[in-house]
Amino acid sequence: MRDLTQLQELFIKAISEKNFGEEPKNLYEPFHYILNLGGKRLRPVLALLACESFGTKAEEAMDAAMGIELLHNFSLIHDDIMDNAPLRRGRQTVHEKWNLSVGILSGDAMLGASFRYISMVDDRIFRKVFDVFSRTVLEICEGQQWDMDFELRMDVTEAEYIRMIQYKTSVLLGASLEIGALIGGADEVGAEQSYQFGLNLGTSFQIKDDLLDAFGDPEKVGKQVGGDILSNKKTILLIHALRHATGEDRDELLAWLKEDHLPAEKVKAVMEIYQRVGSVRYAEERMESYYRKALNALDECSQHGANITELKNFAEYLYHRDH
Amino acid sequence: MRDLTQLQELFIKAISEKNFGEEPKNLYEPFHYILNLGGKRLRPVLALLACESFGTKAEEAMDAAMGIELLHNFSLIHDDIMDNAPLRRGRQTVHEKWNLSVGILSGDAMLGASFRYISMVDDRIFRKVFDVFSRTVLEICEGQQWDMDFELRMDVTEAEYIRMIQYKTSVLLGASLEIGALIGGADEVGAEQSYQFGLNLGTSFQIKDDLLDAFGDPEKVGKQVGGDILSNKKTILLIHALRHATGEDRDELLAWLKEDHLPAEKVKAVMEIYQRVGSVRYAEERMESYYRKALNALDECSQHGANITELKNFAEYLYHRDH
Repeated sequence: MRDLTQLQELFIKAISEKNFGEEPKNLYEPFHYILNLGGKRLRPVLALLACESFGTKAEEAMDAAMGIELLHNFSLIHDDIMDNAPLRRGRQTVHEKWNLSVGILSGDAMLGASFRYISMVDDRIFRKVFDVFSRTVLEICEGQQWDMDFELRMDVTEAEYIRMIQYKTSVLLGASLEIGALIGGADEVGAEQSYQFGLNLGTSFQIKDDLLDAFGDPEKVGKQVGGDILSNKKTILLIHALRHATGEDRDELLAWLKEDHLPAEKVKAVMEIYQRVGSVRYAEERMESYYRKALNALDECSQHGANITELKNFAEYLYHRDH
Repeated sequence: MRDLTQLQELFIKAISEKNFGEEPKNLYEPFHYILNLGGKRLRPVLALLACESFGTKAEEAMDAAMGIELLHNFSLIHDDIMDNAPLRRGRQTVHEKWNLSVGILSGDAMLGASFRYISMVDDRIFRKVFDVFSRTVLEICEGQQWDMDFELRMDVTEAEYIRMIQYKTSVLLGASLEIGALIGGADEVGAEQSYQFGLNLGTSFQIKDDLLDAFGDPEKVGKQVGGDILSNKKTILLIHALRHATGEDRDELLAWLKEDHLPAEKVKAVMEIYQRVGSVRYAEERMESYYRKALNALDECSQHGANITELKNFAEYLYHRDH
């Protein structure tokens, strides 16, 4: 089977040659624009990788991988509107380059088109693929709504936080892997455990993101650390600290949450509280726990006929990244 | 089989008892809000009617009918944002009552949910139902984009206009009927002709709308006539007149298009031009032609096992309405 880089190249070539539609121009030009902004294409490539891991040529999963990339980009276009984001990958977002209506409508069409592509699978697995995909669409919407809701709440629980990051990000990784596995010929357990691999790896990855934002090396992360702290974002670190800090730690933390004129001091002080309260250690443990769950799921896949070498390489690469 | 009113009551009862989801509240409350603003529920009821016309209890088509109503309401929420509309049926639109993000995201979720409901059909017809439905989703988006594009163009052709109104409105009537027919047990021709009945009846209905806006009785139409004329909307009347008016008629028409300080005079003068140039007669002929096509398709359905009495009643009711 081919490795991640080879399948990435395969997918990038396929998508760059794809014509998603011509007319009306204002509907389909945004497709080609956002789909050519680049990116690692992780989700579609995971689908191709899962397909090959079960012994089927990745080309068989190419249409479904397109559907997955379309779904992801639909959510980027609409999220950019909700976040009022002017730029994506250093280029104008769709609603900035065109306008609000074009952003909404081309996103809608992209969601519709994603269902068309995902349906280009064998009748034998169509119902199952459709169920995974359509459930994921709803979960992504729920995750985005929770994320927005959490900005206004101080009582977010860890369980709510985990569900939010899973719905917003990890379920689509899981779905990509399961759909690829189904096309690859996986049995029921193989498909389900492919999903669990993606779900848990994605969750581990999101927790790592929280840690890197606070404790990463700014030169490697490519941005100033502490952005989450400055915006009082309910990360797993803050949720843990709010629950477990006592006495002076607690008073100090609550005071810093109200402070927004001393950014450098705030980041430093809150990081120290996270260390003292044990929030950093706790987050690392959760990250490791989800990572182990992901690897266990991968072992199950292996016992159900998958060649897991490349997926394991990918998991290790994600786990050990420091940016 | 039951008639339109009975199936309307059946559907309204079913939808009022439906729980589409609880959490997150800001995602699912808009579902219940917009779905309870009322309306004739034409699309889902046509699906139920088509199902019974082929000899199957409408209850079998209830989930699919829900999916159709969800798709329709997704498009209402997003169109209201694009049109900047503050009110729908005299109540606040979703983006006005909540905010832009809730409007976008609950619409997205509604589109996702519509696919979930439409999929609750027998495996035997699932692929066919899915193909009709997903194609329709894309056509509705394309129709909406063309409608917006046409506002800025003076060279819209009749063919472009017909495609726009069909995509924006008629294809969902066709899809509702075809999906109902498929669930009802129609053969291939019966299903296809059910679609053609809806497509052509919807097209006839839209042309009638253009005529009523200019020439309807204001008391019956419930609003001042001439709104399309005042906004220079590219109706079939204006498109025909722009193509066929010559000499003084043409000069006069072009002058009125630039005039926006004399509303009553403009409406009266443009209506007279439409009469003189033959645009009214032409639009009436097109309306009748699409209506005949609809009835012919219905006859085909009848020859393929459908009891078309109620569908024919409905067509006649639409055709003879004067408001």
